[in-house]
Amino acid sequence: MDSASIWATVQSIRGKAPVVHSITNYVVMNNTANALLAIGASPVMAHAEEEMEEMVGIASALVINIGTLSEGWVRSMFLATEAARKKGIPIVFDPVGVGATSYRTGVARELIEAVPPEIIRGNASEIMALLNAGGKTRGVDSSAASEDAVTTGRQLHAQSGSVVCISGATDYIIGAAGVIMNKTGHPMMTRVTGLGCTASALCGAFAAVSADPFAAAAEAMAVMGIAGQIAAARSQGPGTLQVHFIDALYNLAFEQVTI
Amino acid sequence: MDSASIWATVQSIRGKAPVVHSITNYVVMNNTANALLAIGASPVMAHAEEEMEEMVGIASALVINIGTLSEGWVRSMFLATEAARKKGIPIVFDPVGVGATSYRTGVARELIEAVPPEIIRGNASEIMALLNAGGKTRGVDSSAASEDAVTTGRQLHAQSGSVVCISGATDYIIGAAGVIMNKTGHPMMTRVTGLGCTASALCGAFAAVSADPFAAAAEAMAVMGIAGQIAAARSQGPGTLQVHFIDALYNLAFEQVTI
Amino acid sequence: MDSASIWATVQSIRGKAPVVHSITNYVVMNNTANALLAIGASPVMAHAEEEMEEMVGIASALVINIGTLSEGWVRSMFLATEAARKKGIPIVFDPVGVGATSYRTGVARELIEAVPPEIIRGNASEIMALLNAGGKTRGVDSSAASEDAVTTGRQLHAQSGSVVCISGATDYIIGAAGVIMNKTGHPMMTRVTGLGCTASALCGAFAAVSADPFAAAAEAMAVMGIAGQIAAARSQGPGTLQVHFIDALYNLAFEQVTI
Repeated sequence: MDSASIWATVQSIRGKAPVVHSITNYVVMNNTANALLAIGASPVMAHAEEEMEEMVGIASALVINIGTLSEGWVRSMFLATEAARKKGIPIVFDPVGVGATSYRTGVARELIEAVPPEIIRGNASEIMALLNAGGKTRGVDSSAASEDAVTTGRQLHAQSGSVVCISGATDYIIGAAGVIMNKTGHPMMTRVTGLGCTASALCGAFAAVSADPFAAAAEAMAVMGIAGQIAAARSQGPGTLQVHFIDALYNLAFEQVTI
Repeated sequence: MDSASIWATVQSIRGKAPVVHSITNYVVMNNTANALLAIGASPVMAHAEEEMEEMVGIASALVINIGTLSEGWVRSMFLATEAARKKGIPIVFDPVGVGATSYRTGVARELIEAVPPEIIRGNASEIMALLNAGGKTRGVDSSAASEDAVTTGRQLHAQSGSVVCISGATDYIIGAAGVIMNKTGHPMMTRVTGLGCTASALCGAFAAVSADPFAAAAEAMAVMGIAGQIAAARSQGPGTLQVHFIDALYNLAFEQVTI
Repeated sequence: MDSASIWATVQSIRGKAPVVHSITNYVVMNNTANALLAIGASPVMAHAEEEMEEMVGIASALVINIGTLSEGWVRSMFLATEAARKKGIPIVFDPVGVGATSYRTGVARELIEAVPPEIIRGNASEIMALLNAGGKTRGVDSSAASEDAVTTGRQLHAQSGSVVCISGATDYIIGAAGVIMNKTGHPMMTRVTGLGCTASALCGAFAAVSADPFAAAAEAMAVMGIAGQIAAARSQGPGTLQVHFIDALYNLAFEQVTI
């Protein structure tokens, strides 16, 4: 990952406007849709079982996020991942709050087992809970630092074949080719709800135009953090940060892409 | 439509604060509620079948938006449109993503046939897909220019009796009295999720206080675009645009209403 | 309630970051989650029956808001309140739109009767409708001033044992110890959707770290209004107000806490 490769992927997203289909949580839908539009992708959100296969059929990537899961939505998640695999488009999986309840943990593991996603992105607690590695999830916020989950992340990668992206002060992106560390970002980002979910959505946009999910995930996390830094510098708090973050994605220029 | 008539309707909304009941999609609920409040209306959002008839009973307009449809919600949409027709309040229908899946297209056509709405507002792809006129919907964004859909829009109007509003760089509002073109607006508005849905919501507020859905739709689209222009002039990207758009609706003054 | 006690509770929230579990409405989820994060709490939102008991098990307060209720969600609300009572954590109940439909009113009364919440927060119309005291709810906005509901609020407190918080230009917080009036706030706050819901969420955060729900509710309403005043002074309308409101909560300093 370097500035040139990141920028090439951003340009590709802007040029192709890939459709990214998300089954995600109610809390963040608006923000992740706006982030996808701002980076140049075309977001679609739909969850009815009746239209899942067709909707995936027009998409270039699928993002599954279990933040506010329930029975019907979980059925659609299974339908969507199967359709995505059949079509050959990348899947990003965000195990929001895994470890907080056994239902949530169970659903997440079943989804990964049924159709291993190209990319799994979560915080340290979530990644550890996915493998029952003793991480304690405190709701949806991590109670562990990202470096604590790297060993587990390697195991999860070995087991699922998925690129595993552990976000935190340092992001760790773990794939067959090794581990990439990303240090872009700003602490205030943790005070805006759903920026983790937005990171997963961006992983979807980057993977949609990329042959390599490992590079795509690392580039997406870099851009996420860069936009956060730009936004934080213009903001007085998490309210203005969220707004400026979208502007920063939209206005991103090559000279801003430093990692 | 002229500045005076637009302004008279805005003043009427501000004076009467009509209750606009929406069954809309999860992605945009917050934004459309805020837009309705900012223009002076009183938004209500509810979808339980058990309360649909009573909730429509306190409303002055009904907005139906199928962006994130599912079985139970569709049942409530049918109940709501029937209740609205019985009560004699205007219905605005927004066929989000029609053409993307056969389920979505089927539901939209059945809703229109069961209770033809006063106003149908969509982008060119959606309007063409509603009549099977060869428009290809690429998710929820249009892949056609609004002028391409005018002929189809006339047919849809002839068939349904509904005012048909095709939004785009130029908006076309098609009714028994002819076609009104509206050119207010700003290209950056297409990079904010759900501003089309917000346009439909405003059509509801304008129709709620107006005897003429054709004029109401045209006036709503004009105000939509004017607020977008004002906001774009103050914004650095789609994040700030969305925020300033709400402020612009709230502060709208007569001298700003130029079309 | 004085500045020192308010500030002590804010400090306690910031220090403990209590998990506040909300079953709330789709329209406001993002905003209330951001408000909770901004004040220093850790929001969780989940509604699946399968995980309700466990999710409440990690929370320090529960907020129930019926703004967009439906059958399955109501079942989870009952499960959640029972789990909260068993665990001994405070419950805040927000009867959004009660009085608008008999379904909504019925559900609200059943919820309160099954497990009386520590705090009930609503506008005047909602509080009056809860006791069938002749308040007419006009959708979700109040058609009565808060002072009109004080007598009803006292009765509701006597009947349920709950602290009753009637929000309006003046907020009335009614408990066993008497009535506290709070006059912080700004009229423009009524033009932002869901700030009432946000007030209920903050009541949850304050109650989570406090032994006294009466004081917690009063302090939360004071902080709500103070943040609104700070935000209004920097805003041009309700769009910017919403953003600055979050910043104001995040940056709240002792010298700003004047009531």
